[in-house]
Parts: sequence; C-alpha cells; structure tokens
Amino acid sequence: MSFCPGIWLGMLRIAICAISILGSVLAHAPQGHVSIILLGATGDLAKKYLWQGLFQLYLDEASNGHSFRFHGAALNPPEQGWQLMTQALDKLSCPLDVLPESCAELKGQFLKLSQYWQLQTAEDYSTLSQDIETRLQQEGLREAGRIFYFSVPAFAYAGIAQHINSSCRPGPGAWLRVVLEKPFGHDRRSAQELSKELGTFFREEEMYRVDHYLGKQAVAQILPFRDQNRNALDRLWNRHHVDRVEIVMKETVDAEGRISFYEEYGVIRDVIQNHLTEILMYVAMELPRNLSNPEELLRCKLQTFRALRSLEKGNAVLGQYQAYQGQVQKELQKPSGYMSLTPTFAGVLLQIDNLRWEGVPFILMSGKALDERVGYVRIIFKNRAYCAQSESHRDSGKSQCQPRQIIFYIGHGTLGSPAVLVSRNLFKPSPPLGSWQEIQEMPELHLFGQRLADYYAYRPRQERDAYSVLISHIFHQQKNSFITTENLLASWDVWTPLLDSITQEVPRLYPGGNGNEHLLDFEQEGNQVVFVQREVEQLVSNPGSGPMPSDFRVLKAKYRQSPLVSAWPEELIARLASDIEVAAERAVRRSGEFHLALSGGASPVALFQRLAKWHYNFPWDHTHLWLVDERCVPLTDPESNFQGLHVHLLQHIRVPYCNIHPMPVHLHRRLCVEEDQGAELYAKEISALVTNSSFDLVLLGLGTDGHTASLFPHSPSGLEGEKLVVLTESPAKPHQRMSLSLSLINRAKKVAVLVMGKRKKDIALQVSRVGHEPKKWPISGVLPTSGQLVWYMDYDAFLG
Amino acid sequence: MSFCPGIWLGMLRIAICAISILGSVLAHAPQGHVSIILLGATGDLAKKYLWQGLFQLYLDEASNGHSFRFHGAALNPPEQGWQLMTQALDKLSCPLDVLPESCAELKGQFLKLSQYWQLQTAEDYSTLSQDIETRLQQEGLREAGRIFYFSVPAFAYAGIAQHINSSCRPGPGAWLRVVLEKPFGHDRRSAQELSKELGTFFREEEMYRVDHYLGKQAVAQILPFRDQNRNALDRLWNRHHVDRVEIVMKETVDAEGRISFYEEYGVIRDVIQNHLTEILMYVAMELPRNLSNPEELLRCKLQTFRALRSLEKGNAVLGQYQAYQGQVQKELQKPSGYMSLTPTFAGVLLQIDNLRWEGVPFILMSGKALDERVGYVRIIFKNRAYCAQSESHRDSGKSQCQPRQIIFYIGHGTLGSPAVLVSRNLFKPSPPLGSWQEIQEMPELHLFGQRLADYYAYRPRQERDAYSVLISHIFHQQKNSFITTENLLASWDVWTPLLDSITQEVPRLYPGGNGNEHLLDFEQEGNQVVFVQREVEQLVSNPGSGPMPSDFRVLKAKYRQSPLVSAWPEELIARLASDIEVAAERAVRRSGEFHLALSGGASPVALFQRLAKWHYNFPWDHTHLWLVDERCVPLTDPESNFQGLHVHLLQHIRVPYCNIHPMPVHLHRRLCVEEDQGAELYAKEISALVTNSSFDLVLLGLGTDGHTASLFPHSPSGLEGEKLVVLTESPAKPHQRMSLSLSLINRAKKVAVLVMGKRKKDIALQVSRVGHEPKKWPISGVLPTSGQLVWYMDYDAFLG
Repeated sequence: MSFCPGIWLGMLRIAICAISILGSVLAHAPQGHVSIILLGATGDLAKKYLWQGLFQLYLDEASNGHSFRFHGAALNPPEQGWQLMTQALDKLSCPLDVLPESCAELKGQFLKLSQYWQLQTAEDYSTLSQDIETRLQQEGLREAGRIFYFSVPAFAYAGIAQHINSSCRPGPGAWLRVVLEKPFGHDRRSAQELSKELGTFFREEEMYRVDHYLGKQAVAQILPFRDQNRNALDRLWNRHHVDRVEIVMKETVDAEGRISFYEEYGVIRDVIQNHLTEILMYVAMELPRNLSNPEELLRCKLQTFRALRSLEKGNAVLGQYQAYQGQVQKELQKPSGYMSLTPTFAGVLLQIDNLRWEGVPFILMSGKALDERVGYVRIIFKNRAYCAQSESHRDSGKSQCQPRQIIFYIGHGTLGSPAVLVSRNLFKPSPPLGSWQEIQEMPELHLFGQRLADYYAYRPRQERDAYSVLISHIFHQQKNSFITTENLLASWDVWTPLLDSITQEVPRLYPGGNGNEHLLDFEQEGNQVVFVQREVEQLVSNPGSGPMPSDFRVLKAKYRQSPLVSAWPEELIARLASDIEVAAERAVRRSGEFHLALSGGASPVALFQRLAKWHYNFPWDHTHLWLVDERCVPLTDPESNFQGLHVHLLQHIRVPYCNIHPMPVHLHRRLCVEEDQGAELYAKEISALVTNSSFDLVLLGLGTDGHTASLFPHSPSGLEGEKLVVLTESPAKPHQRMSLSLSLINRAKKVAVLVMGKRKKDIALQVSRVGHEPKKWPISGVLPTSGQLVWYMDYDAFLG
Repeated sequence: MSFCPGIWLGMLRIAICAISILGSVLAHAPQGHVSIILLGATGDLAKKYLWQGLFQLYLDEASNGHSFRFHGAALNPPEQGWQLMTQALDKLSCPLDVLPESCAELKGQFLKLSQYWQLQTAEDYSTLSQDIETRLQQEGLREAGRIFYFSVPAFAYAGIAQHINSSCRPGPGAWLRVVLEKPFGHDRRSAQELSKELGTFFREEEMYRVDHYLGKQAVAQILPFRDQNRNALDRLWNRHHVDRVEIVMKETVDAEGRISFYEEYGVIRDVIQNHLTEILMYVAMELPRNLSNPEELLRCKLQTFRALRSLEKGNAVLGQYQAYQGQVQKELQKPSGYMSLTPTFAGVLLQIDNLRWEGVPFILMSGKALDERVGYVRIIFKNRAYCAQSESHRDSGKSQCQPRQIIFYIGHGTLGSPAVLVSRNLFKPSPPLGSWQEIQEMPELHLFGQRLADYYAYRPRQERDAYSVLISHIFHQQKNSFITTENLLASWDVWTPLLDSITQEVPRLYPGGNGNEHLLDFEQEGNQVVFVQREVEQLVSNPGSGPMPSDFRVLKAKYRQSPLVSAWPEELIARLASDIEVAAERAVRRSGEFHLALSGGASPVALFQRLAKWHYNFPWDHTHLWLVDERCVPLTDPESNFQGLHVHLLQHIRVPYCNIHPMPVHLHRRLCVEEDQGAELYAKEISALVTNSSFDLVLLGLGTDGHTASLFPHSPSGLEGEKLVVLTESPAKPHQRMSLSLSLINRAKKVAVLVMGKRKKDIALQVSRVGHEPKKWPISGVLPTSGQLVWYMDYDAFLG
C-alpha cells in the first residue's frame, strides 16, 4: 500500500516517449483489453474525481501493455450526455512535470478511447456489451476484464446490477469488477438487504465498495507504518502505553445544498460509521503478519469489530449547527415549525474489550460548521516521565515531560497537507516507504501541544488524490482498501444500536465556526461522554457532588414489623452499600471474615456498581462471596447470576480467588442433575467455612409473585425442612434453579431485602398484608431466627 | 490544624496592652506554670528556629494565664553558654505589626524568664529540677508541666532521657513532654532500638517526634483541604481520576559543611524517609471522619503504610553531585581515591496496593545541587476531555483540555511562598480555613503548565515558620503533627529494604545546577523507574526493541532424542511463549478449547509475565488453566503455586472464572488429607473436562535432583501406576505436595520442559546421560505416549 511517485514518474516518461507508437502497442496489448464503464459519468463525483482517476490509470498502465476503452454512461440522451462528459474530460490535468504540449496529446489520446452511452433499458446494456465484443473482435484483442463503476444513487444499484449480470458480463477467462460508492445502506437491516440483493448478481470478489478515506495518503500509511515500526511499537501499541486515541474529521462547511441527502443520514452515517470507523480499525486491529493478504487483514479487522463494546445513547454527544433548521425548511419545503433532530456534530466514545485495548478510550469526532477543516488520527501515549529540571530550564524537544504522540494527519488544518508525525521523545520511526520526505519548514508551527520541530515529521513529496489511488487498486485487484460485505455489516452492527437509540435525542445547537467556543467540548465520564458545559452552568464547578451521607433524605419506618429504609433509588443504593460496608467492618473486626450471600437479578446491579466504585475501604480481602441462588446455566452464560456478579463487581475489586463461591450448578458437564449432588456440595462448603452456617449478611430480592432467592410459591422445595441448599423449579425460564433454603437464610445475622421499581409496588403492598404463609408468599417466610431483617424499598416500590 | 493569625494578632494586642501588668498576671498564673528546657540551646537549630518559636509561644500564651520559664541547656560551662545563648536571644524578632519599642520590652521580659544551665552530669539534672521546684514554691505557682526539647545529636538521646526520667519528672498532676528531632535511627533496626530505649524512660504519649515538614503551612493544609472539599474530592481522589502524584523537594545548596552528617545518611534518610513519606501519607491515607482524633488518624495512616508495595532497587534512581566526592575527602579527611556511594539525589516510585490507589504512581523526588529550590505536592488528574475547538481558538483558563491538578506548594520556587492551587477546570474549592487569601498578583506566572490565573490560588496572609507552629502544637498537646513510634517504624519498614538494596549502587554523577539538564529525568517502566538518558545514548531512540521473532538466534538440537530449543533466557522465554500461543490457537481451532497445565516455581514467572504483557491475541477466553503440581498450603499462601500463577498471570488477563482449576489441596479447612480425596477430585475434574485426559500442553520444570512436577526421586507415588493425580512428599519444605502423575503427563499432546539458570547445568548434563530411570530421575520418565516432548533450555543450563 505504499505509493511510489518516483517510479511512477519514471514510467510516465516512458509513457510519453511511447505515445507515438501507442496505437500499435494497443493493437498487440499483450496484457489484454480492459473496458471501464463509468455509470453516472456526468455526475459531480465523476466530474470532480473519477474521470481524473481514470485518466491517471490510463497514463500509468497503458505503457504496461494494457489496452483500455472508457465508456461513460448516464441517463441523458446521447448528445447531451456526450457534451456533459466532454466538459469533464476537457478539465483533466496532467501530472506537474508533463509539458503542456505533451499533456494535450495525452488528453487527446484519452478522449479518443472514450465514448458515451445512454444506459436506461435492458437493451441499452446489451448494446453496450455487444459493442465491446464487436470491437474486441475487430481489433483482435483478448479481453482482460470489465470494470463497472457505480457513481449513481444507491436506489439505482439493484436495477443496474441486474442488467450487468444478465447482459454485460465478459466472456470466459475475463474478469468483472463492480465498484460501489456509499451510502451502503442506512442501518444494519438495509445494508444487509442491499448486500443480499447485490449478492444475487455479483460474487463477493467482484465487488469493490469504496471508502475513499482508505485512499487518503496518511490513512493508507497507518498499517504500513505499524508494520515498518513493529520493533518500537510492539511494546507501545497497547493499553499499558496508549492513553487515548482521537480520530477526527472537522469541516467548516455546512450541509447547505445537500440537505435532502444529509437530513436522511446525519453525521454518523455520513462519515463516522464508514470513514472514521475504518480508520479506527487500522489503528486498533491486530497487525497481520502479511499486510497484503486480504483474508488475514479481514480476519483481524472482524476480530476487532467483535471486541468493540456495544454502543448506546450515552456513548455519544450530538450537536446541530443553528442554521440547519432553516436550511431544512427551505430545501425540503418544510413548514416553519418543522424541527429536525439530525445531528451535524457527534463525539463518540468507543471502547474495545480485548487485552490490548481494554480501558483505552477511542474518540471519534466529526462535524460540520466547526472552526476549522482538518482530519487526523492522534495516538496519545501515557507519559510516565518525571523531569528533575524545572520547566523553564528544559529543552522542549528532547524533554520526556512533553507529550508523546503519533499523528496521522489526513490533511488541511494548519499543516495543510497529509503527514505522519512522531514525537521526538517517543522513538525515531522508519520513514514512510514510498516517496515521503521529512518536513523541514515551519519548525515553530504549533501542533497538538508541540512544535513541529519536536516531531519526526514526514509528508508525501506529491499529494495524490484518494480516488486515483483507489482506481489503481481496483485495477490491480488490491482488495485490501475496499469494504467487504462482512466488514460492512460488522460496522453497521456497531452503529445501528446507537443510531436507533438517538432518534429522539435533541442535539445541542451550536452557532458554527469560532463561535462554538467550548460549547461542543465533551468529556468521558465512566463509560459515557457528556458535554463539559452542562445545560445548567454551575454543575461544572462541582463535579463531585454525588449524594453524601449527610444529604440522605431517607424514610425510616416499619414493614412487616421489621425496619424499613426507603428513599429514591440512588440514595437507597448508597445507603444499602454503606450499611453492608459497616456490617463487613464489624464482622472482620469480630471474626476476621465477612460472609456475604448475594442475589442475582437486576436490582443488585446498581448496588454492585456502587460497591465497586465507591467503597475503597471495603475489606474485600477478608470477604467471602456466596450466591443466594443460581440459574442452571453454565457460570459463563450471560444469564448466570454469577456472571452478573462477575461483570458488575468481581472484576473491579480484588477478592481472593478462594473466597469466591459460585454455586456448583455445572458438574460433570451437565446442569443441576440431582445425582451430581451440587446442592449438597454447596451446603458442605458453607458448613465448612461459615461458622454455624450463619451468614453475616444475606441480600435478597422480591419477585412480583412473592418469590425470594429461587424459592417459588407452591413449590415446597426449600420452604420447609432443614436442607440448606436445594434445587428448585422456577415458573420462568430457565426453569431449573439452585437456591439457599429459607432455613439457611433465616440463620443469617442480617438479612436485607432490596425491592426497587414501580413493578414491585403491587406485590410490596400485598406482602405487607399477609402473615406467615411461605408456601403462598415465600418472602413471608424470611424471618431470621436470631438475626435482623431490614427492608430496603425505593419510593417507587413502596409508595408507587 | 488551622492557623488563625487574625485571632492571634488580636491576642497579641491584648498581650501588648497587658505587658505592664504581666508581672502580676504571672504571679497568679491560673493555668499553671510551664518549664521549657531546650537541650542544645546554643546549637544551630536553636539559634535559627527554636528560640524564635519559644518566644512566639510566650507571646501567644502568656496572656492566656500561663506562666513560663525557659531553661536553655548545653554542655558549655555556664558563662560561655549564657553568652552564646544571649546572642541568639538578641536576634529574636517580633511580629511585623509590633512597634520597635514594644518589641524591645517584650524581648526584655522574655530574657528575664530565660536562664542557662550546663547539663552534663546526673547532679546537673537534679539541680535543675530542684531549682524549678524551689522557684515554684517560692512563687506559689502550680506546676502544669515540663517540656524537654532535644536539639542534640541522636547518640546523646539515651543518656539525657535517663537523667530526665530519674531526676527531672515533674510532680504528680503535672505533665512531661519530650520533643525529639530526627534522625530517628538509620534503618528499621536502629530506629526500633532507639524507640525501645526511649520507651523505657518515657511513655508514648510523652514523646513528640518532630518532622518539621508537618508544620509547613501548605503541608498542614493537606488534610483540612481534603476534609473541607470532601464533596468534590470524594469522587476524584482515587485511581479512576488521579493520574499520578509527585512529591518533590529540590534544593540548590549542596551538603558542604555538613558532610560528616550527610555521608552517613544520604538523601533518602535525610528527607525522603521522613518529610516526603509523611506528606505521601497525608495525600494517600483514607480520610478520618474526625481529623482531630489522633488515634483515628494514626490508624488510617498505618493502614496505608501497610498497603505500600515493598520497595526494591528498581524503584529508585540515584544521583550524586560531582563536587560531593571532593567534599567528602576534604571534610572527612579521606584519601583522594576514596569513593562515596551516598546518593544526594533520588527519584523513587511508590505504589499503593489498595482499591483507591492501585496503579497510581507516587513519585517522591529530592536532591541537592539542583536547578532550583522548591517543594511541592502535585496531584495530577487524568484528563478525559476532548475539545472540539482547535487549540488556537480556545480560552485556556476555562478549557477542559488544560491540565487538571491540585498543588500544595510548600515554598520557594518561582511562586516564593506557600500556596494551595486548584486548576479552575477541576472544581472551585472551599478556600483554606484560617487566614489564607486568594493570590491576585502575577496572573501570567507559569506554574506546572498553566498560568497562575488558571488556578484557584490561595496563600497564607502571613507566613509562619514551621517550628513556631509545631512548638505551639506541642504546648497544646496536638499530637497529630508528630510521629508516633508505630508510624516511625512503619516508615522504616518501607524504606529499609530499599536502603539495604542500594548500598552498592553507583549513583549517577551530575554537575549541579542548570547544568544537570535532562541527566536526572527519569521515567516509569512497569514497576520500576529508570533514567531517561540511558548510559548508552542510542537506547533512548528505540525504546521498544525487545527481541523480535526475526531476531531469534535460537539453537535447535536434540536432547534425550527430543527436540531442544536453546537460547539466551529472554529469547528462550519469548520463543516458548510464542510456541504456547501457536499451540493454543491450533487447539482452539480444532476443538474450541485449549487445556494448559502449568508448573509453579521461579522459572515460569518470566513466561507468565511475557504471556500477560505481550500476547494480546492469546485465546484466553477458550483456555483452561490447570496446575501441574501444588504445595499443600492454602491457595492464598505466597508459597502456593496457584498464588504465583495468580500474581504473575491471572490477574493481568481475563480467563473465565470457571476455566481456572486450582488443585484442591485445601478441603474441609485442612491440607492434603488423604481421606478428603483432593487428588481424586482433581482427577475427576480432569476426566470430566479434558477429552481423554490428554492436556494440549503440559509445562514442566526440572529440579536439581532430577524431579519434575512434584514427582521426586525414590518416592514411588505418581511415577508408576495409572493414578492421574497423586499426593507426594518433597524433600524440601513444604513437604506435602499434590502432583499430576507421570502417567497423566505422558498422555499430553505436547510436553514442554523449561530449564533455566547455571544451577541447572549439572543436572541437565546428568539427565542427558541416563536412560529411562524414573525412580531415580523422575524427569527421565517424561515420554509422551503419542504426543511431543520439547526441551527449552537457556544457555546457562545447557552450556554452563
């Protein structure tokens, strides 16, 4: 994927020398003949980039023995179409070092090889194909292949694809390549439908989905750079050394004139789901041993896609420039009250749950009407240097206390060209292969907190347009720079849930340009991002104002003759967590150990999270964790209570391995089989480790049917008798459960019952009125023999 | 611990007004009389700080109804001593707002209350005590207490303490306080001896060990600041938000003139073990609910001391200014070839293994002959903000992309006074209590990467000398600012192992002053610190140059008819880790699981670390980890193989809980009891989970006696027969072991034997010569039935 303009220019010179004999070369064309059909030949993209790219392909390859013909196609009638097309061809430019006379000659040659077709009906396609074949026969050329470039709206894809498949395939031995331009669908479903439809006409290897960012010179350097600098990067390219990654594409223009497209897509579909996500993959994926093997590359990419944590609403901040509403009303003829929620700015936090990247934030940001036009990928390394010399006495360039970063500068911005920058205090990279050179000028230019002179900085000797690069790759069958169906769907898998979750989100309005000031700055909070300037200004000044013990407005009362603590959910959880910590401290002081039995389900999740993130002083070292009940699924199943405990609590704290006591529901590779005696095994373990089998604290929940632990109404198991641990049947799936018995629960020193949410209101009321009827209301059987029972109910459950 | 000069000045004014009647007030002294005996009254510390502190105590407290007498004491004969002492008293200064005339009067009054004693013999002490009592009687005063301030070399402590205890204790109802100045010992042992000795003369509550840094105004603000800002800090003061903490004390002066002291102590004992460590505690300890409760404070402090990870050589970088050698030779009359290894600069990395601080580096740095004199504590917060606006368009003060930090500026430096600084983008703190004020001047002053205007910045209205503050605390029995014996020993517990490990370390020489440039900059690498500028310059430019697969110079040969891989240790480990990963990938592809059985001991540690830190692609999710053998100790014992596996591998990776299979050596609260059937249990688990009980890979070691796993020579268990798991006896402690049997090991698909180190050379040679004699050489019985055996030996073991 390295570009060699030096070599390329050499070839060009040969091409120029060869021009006079080009006609005869074409006649022999040992490499065969290639027909390129540009669909949408008179459209904007074609005029701006594609014809130029095809012209350059011709300049590069004709001298290599390839023969070409370029078929522009569109819906316009022939004469009008030809006229529009030649307007585009007139504007073609030659490489800088081609003399004007030679250029005119080359363009003339190209024009001779170009023709225009009106392609509308099935016959039009047959005619085109027949024409190609006739000419091949006439000229005695062997056909190498055909490239169909779809520069048309996506809705037209299927029709065209069908025509190509039925009438325009080349003969045996020659290849077909179809080139597709985004948008590739609107979400997972539509992308899959489109892919499926195209799949009925073309084989995967025939399709080239263009993401033109992969043709940008700096982007195309990411993998080769990682490869060439494996030595230095092997140690650095991971969560231990990378602090964060920013992938940014900012525009100053807005969407005016393109609203009918933009309103349907918005910033995430327009650039983030495709361009920035592909760049993210280049940065984050495992580096294949062989970069030029597309299968290996795809495998590594898909692996990383799978490790991306699913996105939800809280992972993005959204904005919309103020003029957008007016533009929508005008361009789409909407009434003045019409309000669009389409975001024109987004900052998204992505996290990758694998060992390399766990905990490293990947920030993708893009927007229109911002203060500058720039694109970059910035990998910021953790800085663990301590400078003995004071700031004022340091030489900034060499100082280890300066930032350490690698930047792939895509273009524009203050630098004004693509570049690869590596902080001098990081390591000296192998310069990018191909014709890149060190940047010598502008040493004092300030970029990302450092002077340009403080970087090893490289830029291409000559900028090449992304489309020229990609057209060359298509020609050479370099599939690496294109989006396969699997890749596309993997990306939509990531983005669709977020897009679905934000359809009703009101984006923050921003004035545009420099006037945005700090309005769009955002920051990470846990797993989410939020705007730094909250709507209510003063929140900024007091980021740490979680509820404090002194703030509690907690209702104390009685419920079923036992103490009741009631509060709003967050306060209730805070209080319960704090009560558990107090109990733990007391138990550890008294006996050196704290035996805590926890229930599964949704309510305790907030409790687990609070214990994990707020209670730094909790004596986990001396705490034994037991399960109150378990579903008969493997412990690694997401349905498993143990798995929930692990995800929300265990993995954040340090409980000795041997203090963790999952229920043995999975023995001898089968689940809760009576004769495997799992319940007895657990009972034995409890008897062995817990004095008198009396837990220090048992946390229970309450089901809407009055069940608690996994003890269900009208199912006697565990509700009476002295068995400590029992297998039970739940009316809900998975039916099989293991549970502590009432008899064991009631031996505990303290039992806390946590009841939260409106859904629990009716049962909470019901249970308040019943007596001791465990067979009908298992919860009513919870009555510690000598311990204490405390109810924790939020206002929703208690007051409704 | 808040200082109230406002109030204090008010009192002073009363004192001044009261001077004319002070005589009569003294006579009644309702609060009782206090005798202060300053031992070493003519020394440097006394002249510079202590007399001044006593004078201020007198000014502050005389008007409160206390009566005082000040007894200077030293070894000089009376007249000479009195003369030296009055020289010091002449130089006393009054607070700024006292008029010169009033000042002279106050000093005169103080002089009248002061006398000099030659204290040498037991009689001298008796005489002093008798004199105090006589005067008390004469003047009809009730004795409140006596303060003995030890401003003498530590070697004199014991003698003086004995005299005080036997002859100078005040009568019943009056208190005794002895004030001790560092050094408090030279290491753990000497500190303990000194403490023990002093403990025979004084009760703990009678002793006040001075660390004068705890009297520095900014240091004294740390805990109150944390307390007053609990709301904001509760969420921030932990590993999730703090990036690192720097505690720094830099001096420009060198040790000239003090070499005889310095040469024995060095920078760590001189300032780091005491001042900087105490500050570290103020920052890191859990915040007591009640700051003025010394027991609670001490408990929290000791808890944090216990959580400090033990220090070793790699945790410090050491330097010595170039002129030091010459000064040592001159002041200690050493020959010109004499070389001192005493460090005059140190940077130390401390880590705290608790949930609040795990992973946060605490850097303690101090040195002489540096580029500036300054002291500060800097808490740097992680910055998770992303600014949508480009740098050039931002207002730095409000920007969330600026650093976020809290600084307790101890003094000197560019700011020139104590201060508390909080980045404005962090939160608005409660201003320090007492007479502190916002700093308005010098908004453009650059401090730690921000302008002073970008901080909420406070400084004391009036600077108070640390000794004045502490003398007042001693008088008021505020023990919080002093070092208890437990505290002192806890600190030596931390520092002694490091000090012991560096006695032979050659410190890096540095020229001193600005000339040090980057020479002393250091950085964290894993759990160590290293100088950034390595001795060999070019190492800096290529920090990631670990061995690469392509670099291997690995010897391939045969050993006992099986393949042998031999290399230098690091290469060998890299190769083995990589081979294991390949085996894992293959197994997972084939069967979805990889069953790996690992040995304990020292050799695999490097392997575990390499697997944890380099192999991001390892399919841990699908790997089952088994133990080859285990010592019969609880799994949490440091001796346990499982514990080693946990520390070096498990805690760094994510293996599903249920894929980890420790050996059940600990059942029913007892270890390896035959009838508990632990071995059978493990065998069953293997049979249930591992197809055909054939591990994918078994990693073995080789003992110097030819043992492998825990299968020992001349002990038949496990060497023959079909039992899969056995209990065995080791000749070394702990004797009892559980081990996989040869029969089970030989069923494996692959067996790797790792042999490293010179110690293994003889046995490696021996084993190469023996046949199949498992009873004599258990390792010789390793011969997989249908699997592959590979030997991994480093050059030391293989070539000697």
